[in-house]
This record gives sequence, structure tokens and C-alpha cells, in this order.
Amino acid sequence: MAVMAEWIAVDWGTSRLRAWAMKGDEILAEASSDAGMSKLTKTEFEPALLGLIEDWLGHGQTEVVACGMVGARQGWVEAPYAAVPVAPLSAPPIRVPDTDPRLAAYVVPGLKQTRQPDVMRGEETQVAGFLSAHDDWDGVICLPGTHTKWIHISAGEVVSFRTFMTGEIFDLLSGASVLRHSVGEGWDDTSFQSGLDATLSRPESISAELFGLRANDLLNGADPNACRARLSGLLIGAELAAARAYWLGQSIAVVGAEKLSATYAQALKKQGAFVTLVNGQDMTIAGLIAARKAKGT
Amino acid sequence: MAVMAEWIAVDWGTSRLRAWAMKGDEILAEASSDAGMSKLTKTEFEPALLGLIEDWLGHGQTEVVACGMVGARQGWVEAPYAAVPVAPLSAPPIRVPDTDPRLAAYVVPGLKQTRQPDVMRGEETQVAGFLSAHDDWDGVICLPGTHTKWIHISAGEVVSFRTFMTGEIFDLLSGASVLRHSVGEGWDDTSFQSGLDATLSRPESISAELFGLRANDLLNGADPNACRARLSGLLIGAELAAARAYWLGQSIAVVGAEKLSATYAQALKKQGAFVTLVNGQDMTIAGLIAARKAKGT
Repeated sequence: MAVMAEWIAVDWGTSRLRAWAMKGDEILAEASSDAGMSKLTKTEFEPALLGLIEDWLGHGQTEVVACGMVGARQGWVEAPYAAVPVAPLSAPPIRVPDTDPRLAAYVVPGLKQTRQPDVMRGEETQVAGFLSAHDDWDGVICLPGTHTKWIHISAGEVVSFRTFMTGEIFDLLSGASVLRHSVGEGWDDTSFQSGLDATLSRPESISAELFGLRANDLLNGADPNACRARLSGLLIGAELAAARAYWLGQSIAVVGAEKLSATYAQALKKQGAFVTLVNGQDMTIAGLIAARKAKGT
Repeated sequence: MAVMAEWIAVDWGTSRLRAWAMKGDEILAEASSDAGMSKLTKTEFEPALLGLIEDWLGHGQTEVVACGMVGARQGWVEAPYAAVPVAPLSAPPIRVPDTDPRLAAYVVPGLKQTRQPDVMRGEETQVAGFLSAHDDWDGVICLPGTHTKWIHISAGEVVSFRTFMTGEIFDLLSGASVLRHSVGEGWDDTSFQSGLDATLSRPESISAELFGLRANDLLNGADPNACRARLSGLLIGAELAAARAYWLGQSIAVVGAEKLSATYAQALKKQGAFVTLVNGQDMTIAGLIAARKAKGT
């Protein structure tokens, strides 16, 4: 039987487009494609979305609420950043002009930090989703990914945040540097832990330790899985050392994909931190539901 | 008039092949191609070299002395590493078997370090070239490049060394990461210095500072040249922080390409170090001359 959406929730990032057919707070169906923001010009956003969700549309106009890089200057519509400290959804979603008449499409603005320049698009929606279920939560939200965010939350507002390119650097080093000859696809907990310990205690050693992975393989024939896990440990250890002011002595929620979140949680717990694991996609949807409610329907 | 080489010096790295027609210590001609070791299979080395130097060959057999990645396991012939502490040319060059009868080709072995795993191929020849003109030199040689080496020299031997992937990471970040949108081709000394100071004093900040380059550009429209120089400063500052045990209070010779060497020298002098700048290619040729003499002709 065909699904008809009351409204459509959209997570539109740099490399992926994900959409959910919604009825109130309930998910009726989902769909995704690789039509990420980085692959589209201004006029290609609407066709990319319609191609994915057209079957969910009824006779009237259907509301679409989207978050992520879709709101960048090069996106579907520019949704200007709100400046922290601010509640994550305090700026109203921006209506996309001149759409197909079957759509009333809105994009959630990202957040910016002026003093220590930083930006986010998409994570503010996940933060809102998390806060919608944790009213009085004060602490830190860590969103691991290509660009990991550490976000300090107090009294329902994003107070400050910091972005780390750890995921992107891991991908470049393991896939495009000389280390690609030594790095496999698997994992080894002991090697992750030893890499983590090395850079957490001596963060400056990161740039020396990296080539050591290759040299150790050349001289001693290292296990590719151990090499991959140690590389991850070295990079996450350096990040945790730099983000210490965020997590030390704080309640931490790690929000993201299951495996990567578990890796961060393992590292943080080893440092004595109190960590809650939360599914990232659930928070995106909860945040889009909150964004729709905030703007009024 | 056609050049006839008494012997041929070859610097054969991962990405480039460089050859010099020599008469004793004198350069008669030079040639280069992009037939680097990474692009060749075992049987392609000899044709790649002959294509470059065939015009220099006389009727008899001509000696070829090569250094660099050409001696790797996947190279023309494997020239096994000598273990430090050791004089840079103490292991004799390896004869390439079954060559064209016009060639007697030799490859200089690289060096390895067992305790803190590390390897070099090519730099040992530059070190030998430097020491051939600086007999009693005790101190540190820094060879900046794709993989920067810090080498501790004492009593004519390589005592220990450490490799940093700084150049390769700079290329990946400026060319293939999200920072490519903000990084230009130019330079700005003040931005280099501020990046350097940031990571030299707080090396753990490197992973947080990187995305700041992008965010600052998005929010404030940063100058692409300043962004490139600051990225370089951040990475070199992190390297210098990790290599402090090598350079602090030592005589330092920076051996490499002119511009990059000057950048390292500027950074080191700011830290109060005593620095000599030496041309890298000159040292390669001097080292190959020394390698030829060491093996006997």
C-alpha cells in the first residue's frame, strides 16, 4: 500500500540525502540516496528530493523540514547561522522560495561561534532532539563523525562548541597516504588502546607516531587490523587531549553511529568520564520533529 | 656535442627519477622524469633509466650509483637496511643483477632503527654527502619534505632518527580535505608565525585548530594565502614540538629544497636554535660520489 506523508523529515548532508515520511511523531517510511549537497547545484536540489519522496506526496501541499549542509550558501537555500550562546532551534527555519507547489520546504539554520571561529549545520538539530527528551540536561554532547563536534550545553542553550577533523583525517591517512599500504579494514582493541594512551598522555607525539605505523610494518610485518586500530587510537587520543576542557568532570552524551560512538565512549570511560550513548539518527528525527513544532504548523 | 659519462649518479625516489652524467666529481649533464619508483614494476626500472641516460653511454660498461626508494622491496633491487647506530654508507651498495651489459648498476642501502621503528631510503646518502664536507660535525640534520627526517649525528654515525609525515599531511589537508576550499597557493609570514606559535606552545591544539581555518574563512572571509601559511605553521609547529628533543640546544643543518628549508630555518631560529642551510640536491650528489668511492671503482 502506498505511503502518504503528513510531512517529510530530511537530513541533507554533504554526501548523503535521507528522508522520512512522517505522520506526527511517527515514521511511516524512509528513503535515502547519495545526492549529497556537495554534488548538487542550486537547481538540482528540488529534483533530487522529489525523485526520492514523490510517491509520498498527496494532493495538497506537504511540509518538508530539512537540516544539514542543505542550508549552506551553496545549498538549496541559505539558512544563516545563529550565533551561540543560543538555544539550538531558536532561529526559525527558512522557507525555500519558488518550490514545486506540492512542497512547503523549510531548512533549519546552523549555529556559529564568533570568538573562536566555528560552525555547525545539522548537529544543532541532533542537539535539539537530545534536549527534547532531556529537559534539564547540563553537560557536553560529543557527536563523532567526519568532523567531530564537542558541544557544551547549559540551561537549554549551546554555550560553546569545537570541531575536530579527526574522521576526515583518519580517512585521508588510511586511504590516501603512505599508511594505506599498512592499514587494513579490521580492528584490534589492544592496539586502539595503546595508540590512545600514547597521544592522550603525550599529544605532541602524534606527528611522530604516524610514520611509525608504516615503519613498524616494514620492519616487523604489522597486522593491518592492529595498524588501523592504532591509527584510530592515535587520532582520537590527540582529539581527547585537545578537548579535555570539554569533557573533564562533565556528563557526556555521545550521539552518533553505533560503532564509532562506542569507540569514543570506550576511550572516555577509560578516562573516568560518565558517558551516555545515544543513537544519532534517532536524535536527527527527534530534532526535526522539534523544529517543525517550533515553527508552528 | 654529445656528453659521455664516466659514471652516472641517480636519485630515484617515490615520484621522481633524477640522473646526472658525471666525470669524477664533476657534473656534465642532468636529466629527470616522473618515472618514480611507485609507478614502476620490477621490469620497468631499467627501461625507465635507459630512456633517460642512454645518450650518455659509451662503448664500454658505465657505472650507475643510485639511492632512494629504488632500493625498496618493490624497487629495482632490494638493498636491505643497515641498522643504526651506523655510518650512513657503511653497508656496501647492492649490485643490480642481470642488467643491460652497458650498465653496472648499484643501489645504496637505506637505514633502519629497530627500537623506535623507523626507516629511511635516500636521506642516508644526503647525510653522507653533508658529512663528506663536515668531517667532525656533531649535531642534528633536518631534511624537510614529504616525510621530514630528524637525524642525530655523532662521531660520523647516524645515532637515531625520526620521521614526520608533515609534508604529506599538508598536501592531503590542503588538496583533498574540506580545507581545500579555503587554502590558496600563496604565503603570508605573519600567519605562518601565528600558526607555528599556537602548536609549538600547545601542540595538543593541532586537531582543534585545523577546522578553525575553514570556519574562520566561512565566517570572516579569510585570505587564502594566509590560510595556507597558517596551516603550514600549525603542522610544522606540531612537528617541532614533537622533535624538540632533537633540536633543543643542538647545531642544526637543514638540508632540502630552498623554500621549504628556509621555512624550517625561520621557525627554528625563532626558537633560538643555531641553523645552517644546505642545498639538498648538492648533498645527494656529494653522497652518491662518496658512495661510489666507498664501494671502490
